[in-house]
Amino acid sequence: MNAIQRAQQAAITAARQARAEYRNGRVAPTAGIAPGMTQANLIALPRDWAYDFLLYAQRNPKACPVLDVSDAGSPTTVLAEGADLRTDLPLYRIWRDGKLAEEVSDATAAWAEHRDMVTFLIGCSFTFETALQEAGIDVRHITDGCNVPMYRSNRACRPAGRLHGEMVVSMRPIPADRVAEAAGISGRYPSVHGAPVHIGEPQRLGIKDLQKPDFGDAVRIEPGEVPVFWACGVTPQAAVMASGVPFAITHSPGHMFITDVPDSTYHV
Amino acid sequence: MNAIQRAQQAAITAARQARAEYRNGRVAPTAGIAPGMTQANLIALPRDWAYDFLLYAQRNPKACPVLDVSDAGSPTTVLAEGADLRTDLPLYRIWRDGKLAEEVSDATAAWAEHRDMVTFLIGCSFTFETALQEAGIDVRHITDGCNVPMYRSNRACRPAGRLHGEMVVSMRPIPADRVAEAAGISGRYPSVHGAPVHIGEPQRLGIKDLQKPDFGDAVRIEPGEVPVFWACGVTPQAAVMASGVPFAITHSPGHMFITDVPDSTYHV
Repeated sequence: MNAIQRAQQAAITAARQARAEYRNGRVAPTAGIAPGMTQANLIALPRDWAYDFLLYAQRNPKACPVLDVSDAGSPTTVLAEGADLRTDLPLYRIWRDGKLAEEVSDATAAWAEHRDMVTFLIGCSFTFETALQEAGIDVRHITDGCNVPMYRSNRACRPAGRLHGEMVVSMRPIPADRVAEAAGISGRYPSVHGAPVHIGEPQRLGIKDLQKPDFGDAVRIEPGEVPVFWACGVTPQAAVMASGVPFAITHSPGHMFITDVPDSTYHV
Repeated sequence: MNAIQRAQQAAITAARQARAEYRNGRVAPTAGIAPGMTQANLIALPRDWAYDFLLYAQRNPKACPVLDVSDAGSPTTVLAEGADLRTDLPLYRIWRDGKLAEEVSDATAAWAEHRDMVTFLIGCSFTFETALQEAGIDVRHITDGCNVPMYRSNRACRPAGRLHGEMVVSMRPIPADRVAEAAGISGRYPSVHGAPVHIGEPQRLGIKDLQKPDFGDAVRIEPGEVPVFWACGVTPQAAVMASGVPFAITHSPGHMFITDVPDSTYHV
């Protein structure tokens, strides 16, 4: 085994250990965990809603880039051998009639309410954060050890069937002289949200106060830094709310599914 | 209107004129027509098959990158205002029980057999051919005025529901000292097949004779040129055959839908 293979094996081991810890009940945001391994947003819906959702994702690919879809009733994925999607995320949200009903660290009981749950794993901007850090660009919420700030924007997604809603965006403050580079680096990962959707001018996105995110934590913005916004995989949860979806299970924002797939897989 | 706007307007006008000619019965391959405008593969299926197909596309994104999905029963698309997907392609194939039943230049009658046809428009490698030509790389089938050669490969696609089949590939001969550049240029268009799936060694793809393509026309291969293979949007037709799909309408290979969307839209 050469040095590169050893590093890859160590990263997969870190991903598996993290999943095992979450399965055993540990609850914590996943930013910065198992660096270099792709993390994913999760939404599971009864089969009756699967086509509408897959179409919604196809029509809104910046916000909802689909990395894998499980067969109906199966809690497994090709992205991580042996993983159980009902237990291996740190925190889940159970949605009923478009409303957040509860947060749980084990979704097994909720999953069992329907025998035909279809699970969608959706790309996460965490994938390009390692590349940003490697370029020497500070990723604030990792540095400060908190969750990334996310906001419901005023941008409508293109509807599909019974689903409609607004785009949710994540925000990272970037020094003005590194913004172009951050846009370029993230743009090389189109299947995990890609380039920013908006740079500066948060009011134009309908965001009144950057210090009051709708999901996650507020972060420091230093003088000379510009807020940079990326489409966010929490967008499906906004659609669940806006559309009054009868039943859904999602990850809790920032508490992602850690896969066995290296970030480099999604680099073009 | 400045020079760039005039050029864009001229390209859209060329796309509309081509669609109008096809609507009026003209039959011809579309390679090299309306340069700079995105062309798309088409497959239309009854709604009952739509989820399986959308999932098949998601699981095989190199071969089946979905650019748009029409609502059930609607022959329109956001990719070209005013276009009618039943008539605006030069040539269609009607499939029954997995077999090619007929080729027609107007699919209106076949379309009317089901009231809930869902139409998928899938990215086409023609999109990056303009970029290849701009880099001074000869695109042989355009130079020689014929259809691109396409082959059924031995690579299985990942199945989805009732759908399975092999990947179809298109081939362009490229001088050995330009192959890396051709890979790089096409790789910047990931949503229209992206980088090659295979370079050289056609036997390894299960292709015995490059001069006998399964679809399209054979092309000259000059000394010093290497056959370069890209995933091809005819792959859905191979799935229709392999899976015995009861009813489908597709474009005829090489006879694409010309959209009003500039190729640059799909550049990352």
